[in-house]
Amino acid sequence: MNILLVYAHPEPRSLNGALKRFSVDRLERAGHAVQVSDLYAMGWKAALDGADRIDRDPAARFVPAADSQHAFEHGTQSADIAREQDKLRWADALILQFPLWWFSMPAILKGWVERVYAYGFGYGVGEHSDMRWGDRYGEGSLAGKRAMLVVTAGGWESHYAPRGINGPIDDILFPIQHGILYYPGFEVLPPYVAYRTDRMDAARFAGVCDTLGRRLDTLFSTPPLPFRRQNGGDYAIPELGLRPDLAPGRSGFGIHLADERASSVPYVAQAGEQQGAQREEERARRHEA
Amino acid sequence: MNILLVYAHPEPRSLNGALKRFSVDRLERAGHAVQVSDLYAMGWKAALDGADRIDRDPAARFVPAADSQHAFEHGTQSADIAREQDKLRWADALILQFPLWWFSMPAILKGWVERVYAYGFGYGVGEHSDMRWGDRYGEGSLAGKRAMLVVTAGGWESHYAPRGINGPIDDILFPIQHGILYYPGFEVLPPYVAYRTDRMDAARFAGVCDTLGRRLDTLFSTPPLPFRRQNGGDYAIPELGLRPDLAPGRSGFGIHLADERASSVPYVAQAGEQQGAQREEERARRHEA
Repeated sequence: MNILLVYAHPEPRSLNGALKRFSVDRLERAGHAVQVSDLYAMGWKAALDGADRIDRDPAARFVPAADSQHAFEHGTQSADIAREQDKLRWADALILQFPLWWFSMPAILKGWVERVYAYGFGYGVGEHSDMRWGDRYGEGSLAGKRAMLVVTAGGWESHYAPRGINGPIDDILFPIQHGILYYPGFEVLPPYVAYRTDRMDAARFAGVCDTLGRRLDTLFSTPPLPFRRQNGGDYAIPELGLRPDLAPGRSGFGIHLADERASSVPYVAQAGEQQGAQREEERARRHEA
Repeated sequence: MNILLVYAHPEPRSLNGALKRFSVDRLERAGHAVQVSDLYAMGWKAALDGADRIDRDPAARFVPAADSQHAFEHGTQSADIAREQDKLRWADALILQFPLWWFSMPAILKGWVERVYAYGFGYGVGEHSDMRWGDRYGEGSLAGKRAMLVVTAGGWESHYAPRGINGPIDDILFPIQHGILYYPGFEVLPPYVAYRTDRMDAARFAGVCDTLGRRLDTLFSTPPLPFRRQNGGDYAIPELGLRPDLAPGRSGFGIHLADERASSVPYVAQAGEQQGAQREEERARRHEA
């Protein structure tokens, strides 16, 4: 299968750099074709602006959505944007790998999303009617493809627990997993998150690689997060509130997962797997046994 | 008072441009001093990288936190970073104004946060002990100052309601309001959010200005969001989970607000105020009465 890894860390000699090389090697050994968009190495332009449409009249008012639509439809997008869209078309799976900076993705990766997700490609797809609100949240240009986050966090796992001070990692990642990946059609796998990554000795690094490696091995078999499809009947159109009989009386990000259990317990499947290499090796032994 | 408005939209002839000019005018007429960091106009460098420390050995491994700390302590930060820090020191209040792009701030503004929030300034402040986990979440370099978001969203308000498909606006903004603003010490005011901003006629624009204007008039009197202080006894240290007797049995972003009511109802005070100028004027009359 074809895999696009979009990677955002400025230093190759970092934990993220090591995990990127590990991932590419693991995937290629499994027979996959891998392309890497190493945003820092590419000198990726982070800021969306009028230069993203090459035939724009510089005196005209820049309207991000309208100019993006025009450029996408007329083949006048900046070449770097079109190249990334081609990689996405080619890919069967997308991996976004990044350090969690200020509870979100680094600016350079956010700018990849903003610029590559053109109107007509990442949004503004499909018709609006009494039954549909465009092709999004489960439908769209990228439907049929899988996506997964690989995230490193300096903080402790307990700080990102359901009652941890930073907020639950599931909720912190929801705007990315639901709002950026599920929105244009990706099936979104549970994320891989490594914690306390500023203190990573060889044993913990081995444990991280072991867990991440198994996530990569099962990239095409792991069940995706059961986000609810927008046009599947769960939401009233056009208000797009969840039907009152679904997750009754509740609110928040978790209600947009179809499996009731999934919204009352963390859906980060590997949440308990970050405790170190020892537990990982115990699991591995159990799996072998 | 001194107010810093950090603004992120590429086109001056946009709704955001108009609201920025309106805000500066309103604040100056009230006697405040205003500085604007217009990130697109400044050509702000969005990507955090090794060039942010001007005395760095280019052959050395770049370690974002360590290099940031060195540069901050030794006065070897890139000049654009130091200038923004000076503006923050000068300010009594910070306003971040931006269009909601992919459920977060534009990349150029995220890069402002990543680069200006140096180690020793935005994070890495204070001591760790059995009683404290650094000066953050209610303490820090920016304590005593106020902050508020001014956000435009293309989608409908109902799509951002507690059961709306995009997720509640309170939760979407939590990583910014709690994780970026409250973290280094700001008192965070309820956000001002305008919806359906791609269809804004003169009447709706007048209503938005009316509501936003009154939010600006009360910038120094509006009660801030009651986020819980990290080192105030609500959290176990060092695990930083909320004490079991507070918001018992619950989880999610809302539990980090001290007022129980505030976590069961939206804390966007003006959620109902987006309906147009007429309702606003009715309210104003009631207040006068």
